[in-house]
Amino acid sequence: MIRPWEDLLTAVRGLPGVGPKMAERIALHLLRRRDEAEALKASLEEALHRLGRCPRCGDLIETDGETKDACPACRDDSRDGKILCVVEEIGDRQALERSRAFGGRYHVLGGALSPLDGVGPQDLTIEALLRRVSQDSIQEVILATNPTAEGETTASYLADLLKAKGLAVTRLATGLPSGSVIQYADEYTLAQALEGRRPVL
Amino acid sequence: MIRPWEDLLTAVRGLPGVGPKMAERIALHLLRRRDEAEALKASLEEALHRLGRCPRCGDLIETDGETKDACPACRDDSRDGKILCVVEEIGDRQALERSRAFGGRYHVLGGALSPLDGVGPQDLTIEALLRRVSQDSIQEVILATNPTAEGETTASYLADLLKAKGLAVTRLATGLPSGSVIQYADEYTLAQALEGRRPVL
Repeated sequence: MIRPWEDLLTAVRGLPGVGPKMAERIALHLLRRRDEAEALKASLEEALHRLGRCPRCGDLIETDGETKDACPACRDDSRDGKILCVVEEIGDRQALERSRAFGGRYHVLGGALSPLDGVGPQDLTIEALLRRVSQDSIQEVILATNPTAEGETTASYLADLLKAKGLAVTRLATGLPSGSVIQYADEYTLAQALEGRRPVL
Repeated sequence: MIRPWEDLLTAVRGLPGVGPKMAERIALHLLRRRDEAEALKASLEEALHRLGRCPRCGDLIETDGETKDACPACRDDSRDGKILCVVEEIGDRQALERSRAFGGRYHVLGGALSPLDGVGPQDLTIEALLRRVSQDSIQEVILATNPTAEGETTASYLADLLKAKGLAVTRLATGLPSGSVIQYADEYTLAQALEGRRPVL
C-alpha cells in the first residue's frame, strides 16, 4: 500500500462523525485542493500552538504558550460578577451573548459528562468552577448545559455540588422554541412545556 | 473573536460533507486530543509532499517530489496489457483487485465528470488515457466508473471518444448485488437487472 495515503486516511478516519467512505472523500479532496490542505495544516499548527484555556473561566483564549492570564472577558469589570452562567463549550457562550439577555460572567466546562465517551468530572473544568464560586462573591449559578442526556447529567451533578455550597442554582427554561408550531413539536418538548407552564399575569 | 479558533473552524468547514456543527465538533476534538491533531498535521504534510499521480495510469503513487516514473503496477509485465480498466479513484482499483477477477491494467481518472461541482474533462486524466490507448496496443477498455449519475456521464463521454478510435468498449454489469434479496432491492437496480437479463445456458 501507499503509506502516506493510508496514514492520511487513518488520521481523517479518527475525526468524530467521519466513517471510512467520508474519510476517503475528505482525503481525496485534500489531495486535489492543495491550497485547502495547506490552509488546514497551517490552521492546525496555529491552533495547537496558540489556543489555550483561560485559567479562570475555561474559555478558549489566544495565548503565546507562556503566559496564563485570564481572558479579556474575565478582566472586564463592567459585567455582573455575582451571577455565573455555566456552559459546555465556547459556541454556547457565543450563542448566549448573541441573545443579549445576560450580563453576568461565564464558565466554560469544555464539554459535558459522558461516561460512554470516557468523559468524567476530571476532564471538565469543574475544579476551577468550584474554586471560582468560593473565591468570587457569586450568588447565583445558571446551569446552561444542553438539554440532552449528557447536559442534564452534568447539570444535576453540578447542582448537587453547588447547592452544598449554599448557592442559588438555576437551569435554563425548557419548552417550546420561540416561533415554533405546536403541531410539529416533539413529545419531550411538549411534556416539558406543560410541566413548566407559567401563570398568565 | 479568537482568530486561531475561527481559522481552524473555517478550514474544517471546507471539507466535503462537513457542516458548521460538525466542524465545531471536529475542531474541539482536535484541540482536546493534541496527539491526534499532531498526527493529522503530520500525515497531511507527508501526503502533500510525498503523494503524486503516476504519469501513465493516474493512480496515487509515493514520490520524492522529483522523479516522475510510472508506478510499480504499470511496470509489472505479468499483467495483460491489451485490456484496460478505467476507474474513478484509487479505492475503486483496490476493490476490483480484491475481486481477483481482473488481470489487465488500470487507468485512474481521479474522479468523475460533474458539471455541478466544476469537474470537467480537463480535471481528469482523460488526455493521458487517450494517449495511452493509442501508444499501447490496447484492444478493450472496461469503463468501471460508478453506476451513479456522474459515473454514467463520464462513461458515456469516454465511450464516444474511445469507440471513435476503434476500441472495444465495455461497461461493468449492473444488476442485483450478489447475496441480495429481491424484496428489498431498489427499483432502479431491479429495472437494470431485468433489462440486463441473460439466457440460462
